This record gives sequence, C-alpha cells and structure tokens, in this order.
Amino acid sequence: MTTYLEANKQRFLDELLELLRIPSVSADSNFKGDVRRAAEYVKDKLQAAGLDKAQLYETPGHPIVYAEKIVDPSKPTVLVYGHYDVQPADPYELWLSPPFEPTIRNERIYARGACDDKGQFYMHVKAIEAMVATDGLPCNVKVMIEGEEEVGSDHLGIFVAEHKEMLKADVILVSDTSIISNDTPSLETGLRGLSYVEVHVTGANRDLHSGVYGGGVANPINVLCDMIASLHDEDGRVTIPEFYTNVADLSDAERAELAKAPFNLTDYMEDLGINDVMGETGYSTNERTSIRPTLDVNGIWGGYTGEGAKTVLPSKASAKISMRLVPNQTPDEITALFTNHFLSIAPAGVTVTVVPHHGGMPYVTPVDSVEFDAASKAFEDAWGKKPIPTRGGGSIPIMALFEQELGVKSILMGFGLDSDALHSPNESYGLFNFYKGIETIPYFYKHYAELKQ
Amino acid sequence: MTTYLEANKQRFLDELLELLRIPSVSADSNFKGDVRRAAEYVKDKLQAAGLDKAQLYETPGHPIVYAEKIVDPSKPTVLVYGHYDVQPADPYELWLSPPFEPTIRNERIYARGACDDKGQFYMHVKAIEAMVATDGLPCNVKVMIEGEEEVGSDHLGIFVAEHKEMLKADVILVSDTSIISNDTPSLETGLRGLSYVEVHVTGANRDLHSGVYGGGVANPINVLCDMIASLHDEDGRVTIPEFYTNVADLSDAERAELAKAPFNLTDYMEDLGINDVMGETGYSTNERTSIRPTLDVNGIWGGYTGEGAKTVLPSKASAKISMRLVPNQTPDEITALFTNHFLSIAPAGVTVTVVPHHGGMPYVTPVDSVEFDAASKAFEDAWGKKPIPTRGGGSIPIMALFEQELGVKSILMGFGLDSDALHSPNESYGLFNFYKGIETIPYFYKHYAELKQ
Repeated sequence: MTTYLEANKQRFLDELLELLRIPSVSADSNFKGDVRRAAEYVKDKLQAAGLDKAQLYETPGHPIVYAEKIVDPSKPTVLVYGHYDVQPADPYELWLSPPFEPTIRNERIYARGACDDKGQFYMHVKAIEAMVATDGLPCNVKVMIEGEEEVGSDHLGIFVAEHKEMLKADVILVSDTSIISNDTPSLETGLRGLSYVEVHVTGANRDLHSGVYGGGVANPINVLCDMIASLHDEDGRVTIPEFYTNVADLSDAERAELAKAPFNLTDYMEDLGINDVMGETGYSTNERTSIRPTLDVNGIWGGYTGEGAKTVLPSKASAKISMRLVPNQTPDEITALFTNHFLSIAPAGVTVTVVPHHGGMPYVTPVDSVEFDAASKAFEDAWGKKPIPTRGGGSIPIMALFEQELGVKSILMGFGLDSDALHSPNESYGLFNFYKGIETIPYFYKHYAELKQ
Repeated sequence: MTTYLEANKQRFLDELLELLRIPSVSADSNFKGDVRRAAEYVKDKLQAAGLDKAQLYETPGHPIVYAEKIVDPSKPTVLVYGHYDVQPADPYELWLSPPFEPTIRNERIYARGACDDKGQFYMHVKAIEAMVATDGLPCNVKVMIEGEEEVGSDHLGIFVAEHKEMLKADVILVSDTSIISNDTPSLETGLRGLSYVEVHVTGANRDLHSGVYGGGVANPINVLCDMIASLHDEDGRVTIPEFYTNVADLSDAERAELAKAPFNLTDYMEDLGINDVMGETGYSTNERTSIRPTLDVNGIWGGYTGEGAKTVLPSKASAKISMRLVPNQTPDEITALFTNHFLSIAPAGVTVTVVPHHGGMPYVTPVDSVEFDAASKAFEDAWGKKPIPTRGGGSIPIMALFEQELGVKSILMGFGLDSDALHSPNESYGLFNFYKGIETIPYFYKHYAELKQ
C-alpha cells in the first residue's frame, strides 16, 4: 500500500489539479456546463479506480455521481459522500493566482475547491483505487458525489429517498471538515445547521433625488440597516423572539470537555489580522463558533456603488442573511421565526419581503460507536496520535437527512484546516493534508471491517 | 420673438436631443471622452447662437465652456451658469427607453440629463439665440457651462477665482431647480448644502467561512448596519454631536409663509407609491426636505451579492453617505463632525475609514431685490401668474462660491418639476417646460435691463 501511494503521488495530484481547473460553481447558472463537466470527470475517475456501475444521475439541478464496489454482501458497507461543486470565486481580484488555475505555493494547492470539497473527496477516490489495486477492499464501498452542496443540496434529498436500497450502508464517511492543526488531528462530532434568507426593502416606486426627497421619505438602505442592527442586542444575542427556545444547552462538563481543544486567542487574532474578537457574551470564541447559533449578513447591496458620488435615494435595498443553527433548532422553524419577526419590524413607508434560500439541519454524531472508534484508530495509525473530538461551526445540511432516510450515522473525517480559506479568495489545501488523508482512509476501512466482525 | 420661437421650435428640440445623446457622465472616468464631446457641442452651439469668444477652458478634470456677448459696457451683465455633465444612468435595466437615446413620450423628453441640466441650460442658449436674432440683447450676457457639477464642481472654484474679471456680472442666472407645478410657477430662494462621504468597515484580513468563524468575529456588514442605524434617533434626528448646533431655525412666521405653497400629502404619497412618509418629528414633509438637514445612505455594498447563496463572512463593507445642509452649516464642519463621530463609534475588531467626497455650501437668495423682481415679472409675463417663493431641498454647491468670489447673487429660475425623476431612471423634462422656459428667459433680460436703469 505504502509503495503504491508513493509511486502514484504525482499522478494523484495531477488528477486533482485537472478537476480543480473545472469551474463547477453551482450557484451561478453561467457555469452549468462546467458543473456537468466536473461530474463527468468524477465519474470517469471512479470507474478508473475500479468501481462498478459508475454513472450520472440526473436531477432538476446538477447531476449526482454514483459508483459502488460490492466485494462481499456479508461484509459491512461504507457510503462515501462528497461534493464536486464549489463556491463562487468572486471577488476574483483578491486571488493571488486565478481560482481555476490551481497553483502550488509553499506546499499548498491554491484553487477554488482545493479543500472544499474537491481536494477532500478526491482523497477517497484515490484511497479506494489504492485499496483495490493492492490488498483489495476490506468492506463494500458506495460513493455518492453531488453537485449542489454549496446551494443547499436541493435535489439530493429526493434522490436519496428514491434510492434507499441502492444507497443502503452501515456508515457514511465524509471528508468535508477540518482538523485542529497538522500536529493535532481531530474528529468533528457535530455541525451547525443553516437557515439562509434574502431580504428586500422597497421604498418609493423609483430611485429619488436625495436632495428633493431626502429627509421626507423612508430611505430603504437606512431602514434595512436599522432592521439588521435590531437583530442583535448589546450582548450579541439574536433578538428574534423564540430564537433560542429550542437550543440545546451544554452542561458545564460538556463545555469543559470542549474547552480542552488547544486554542490560542492571540494566534487566532493574528491570523485574521484583527485586534479583538466579537460575539455573544458569556461564551468563548470556540463556543461562539460551534455550540451557539448565530446570525450573519453575508451580502448587502443597494443604491449607487460605482465610482464617485451619486446623490440618489434608492428605491430598494437588499441583503442575504444566514443563521447557523445548533442541535434541536430546525431550519424550517428558524426561517419562519426570522420571516415573521423581520416583517413585523418593517416600518410604514416601505415594503419588506423575505425569500428563503436553502436550509440545513444541525447534526451530532455519537462518539461511543464502532464507526467513531474505527475513525479514531485510523488517525492513530496514520498520525501517531489519537484525534480530539470537536464541534464544528459549518454546516453539511445533508447529514441529518442521511440519518433520517438511510438510518445510519455519518463520520466526519475531514483533513482541512480552518486557515484553508474555504469560501474565500485564495482557498488552499495542504499537500501534506491531501496525501495524509489518502493514507488515513484505508486504515478506517481496515479497522471498521475488523470491529464490525 | 414669438414668431422666431415658433418657427424654430423643432430645431431647438432636435439640438437638445443631439446633446442628450452624448453620455457625459462626469463621475465615471469611462465616459471622459463623451464628457469632452458634450463640451465641444455646447461651445459650437453658443457660437452659433451669436456669442463671442466661445471656448473650452481646460481644468485638471472636465473642461468649462465659456462664451459672452458684450452689447454695451454701460448695460448690466447677466452671467448664465449651467452644467453639461449628467449623473450616472444606472440601474440601466429600470429605464423604459435607453438613457442616452432620448425618446418623446406623453409630451415629455425621456433621457439622462433631460432636465438636469442639459434641458434647462439649453433653454438659455436658445433664448439668447432668439434675442440676438430678433430684437437684440437688452443686457450683456456671459455664459459659463461646467462639466463637473454632479461630482462637486471641484475645479470651477479655481476657475472662477482666476477669471474674476472675465466673469464680472451683476447677477447670475441659473436654471437647475424646479417649479411647484405647471399651474403654479415658483422661484427657489434657498438650496441645501451637501457633505458626501464614503465609509469602509474592514474586519478580518480575508473573507471568511461564516460557519467556521460566524459568531466569533466582527462581521463588517453587521457592524456597518449597527453604525448607520445609530446615526438617527427615534425622532428621526441625526445623532452626530453638534450636528444641529449651527442650524438656522426658522421663525413661526417664516414657517407659516413656506407652508402656503400648495402641497397634497395624498398625491405626494401616491406619486411615489408609498403608504407613509418618514422623517424628523415636528416638521412637515416640505420642511423636512428643505429647511432641515438630513442624512441618507446613497449606496451600500459588501459580501456576496450574486445569484444564490454564499455563506461568506466578508472582510469589508462600505457605504456612501450624504448629508444635506441648511444655512449656517458648512460642509467642512459637518464632514469633520461626521468623521470624528463615525470613527468614535467603531467597535473593537474592525477598522473604519471615512473618505470625504465633495461638499457644497447651503445658499439663500434675497427676495427683496431688483434681480428677484425681474425674475418674478418674467414669470408673470410668460405664465400669467406671480411665482411663489420656495425653499429647495437639493444642492448647487457653487452658488455660495459665486457670491464669495464674484460678489453677486444668483437667481434660481428653474423650470423642472419634482416628478422629473432627476438622478433616477426615466428622468424626463416636459416639452411644455422646455418651450415655456425659452419663452420666459427673454422677459427676464427685458425687465432686468429696465429695472437696473
């Protein structure tokens, strides 16, 4: 195995770079053809890795790639999940090298999707190839790579529901999360959910001259700012009524356990170039970004944003707002609470609309399971260290759905770093992490097959 | 005169439409060549109207067009001021006909600059042509048309200071304001000043994943919204310390006089398509938009504003903010107050910068003067009605400078309507107003020459 991985190192990387060159931005319909091209590429590589039945499943959105290898029906089955779509790459001007021309600098691959999730799911493709080519697969494997993760996995739910038999598995294995650092491997045991909405505030039926009308009628930008500002109180808590009602509070013991993860506030601030952190009173930075729900504006626009000065009082202002959810909150509940509240605080003189985008359930995975044990041992074998259990702040909305539809838990065996700049310009993935991931994955299969016997 | 105006009606309009086809957007450097083309066109037409010494005066920005006709040095001199530059036309998609392809609909000219100020200053060019071609000019006339009014007239001040002798006049005549309605002519006796700034709030050194960092660090959009929201209190008053200190309060008698101008709130709201007005407690809509200072956000941007959903926590958020000023407030004072205050309310965790754009002094013109009388009589002759004195909400920053440098007052003899959609999509100017203006202007010269004798 080690020999095979070493011998094929460069090819593995070249194949990933080829995949990263395809701008498979699922959110922007201009890239529709590229998204499909990425799907075709993944299908071909799954086939080449030795998997059977590789094919694209069409959806009303982007296709889902599936392949499998059933070595022995009596053995356990691992379902690998990942996504070949990527976040939009703008603002392009902030990239040091073009987002879809992957570049290696400082032992890192710089490209949109390098880590999220092309670099991570492709480790599985290569690990499977290596197992098939050397000692053979110790378990059955099914691979499902979707193209709509970054836009809410709208059609994956229906696909999963309609293909329960085909997708039947004992565990779902996902690499789309982070470790604490390359010295401190970790396994995420929970993810936040997501509620994402777009809001529009409309005043007059046309843009107005701010001299003629300014001070006399509602300015949609000012109103939108007022409304957004009112969504947090002075303690950094979200003011939407009932927002915290279902939040699962952690015990002091649980908080103490999470606090054991190494964290240096000075390093954290230095990495981000900030002179202070900000968040909900009474919680640590790690808690604020993992076990607490949040509300952030992801985009805002309105009026004149070009060069120079224009004295316009715009007709409309808009914002994209997302809320990260924690266990026991549901996106449906929170989206409804947000919508009702936001409409209720709209002043006279403007019209407010709220358009829901995608949502996702929060997720918690048990640490006292054969699956978690197998993942933990895999890290020990490859890294020489036991991974620390952590709670992640991001969302992979489909985890909860997998559990509901397929009745199995997921293992979040990610190999990224928080500093990989996911969703940001200059996203990157360490060559160390890419290769170490390929090395770790076969150990999971080995231990899982043994432990399930 | 009447015969001449009637005979040349169509040509006057055709010439204006030709001028409106030139996209002379001064704020956007992409249009630099077009701005110059508009200046050349104006120069040619001033020459064709019978004026002497027509030429472009270069500035570090856009050129100033000047021409004059001295019929008799012992007669009074009128200096006509206007501007050939226009506001940016975006959002283009809201125009029913393209902004730089003037279209006549419902007896109105639809085009960017139709009213502000091409349609209005061009009335003077044609009125002068008509006087020269028929009875001769009753006064000397100087015409100065600039190309930077919409970006703060940055270079006009220096030009005026350097050409005091050339520009020497007894009165400045400007058509860049509105009348109450086509049934109710009016003369503006005051204008608001302007302070315009751009603000930037920067958080982390890169865009962040809102799941990984959301809730733990300052979100520049949320912070910007908080800061903007805090700039008004519940009574709609600006909260910047000292903002109102120098505001000239009007006496009850003065307010009662202004309240005589016909105004129907229901019609006003219906025209704008709004169900309520909004503004400073204790003042009428007309007062809020004329004698009271205001603060409006003219543009805001930050984060992801494209199609779909992106869970980014952006590095930066920005806004363009303008304040309309009233007599005794100065742009330098207010810009400094704003800057100090805005920087002082920036929370830890972000960096805030304030970049001043242009400013302008408020202006008040006396109603008990020969000049005002001449303008008033001109309206009576052409419209059969005495014009009502009003206070305008917009700004023509250069008025105060003219008074300071040239020692003369300006007459604001505008013929537009508030509903002309200045600075907005579908700006228009009534054919009635264009022709009626050309008819009114020669009466001003006649009365002014007589009254000054």
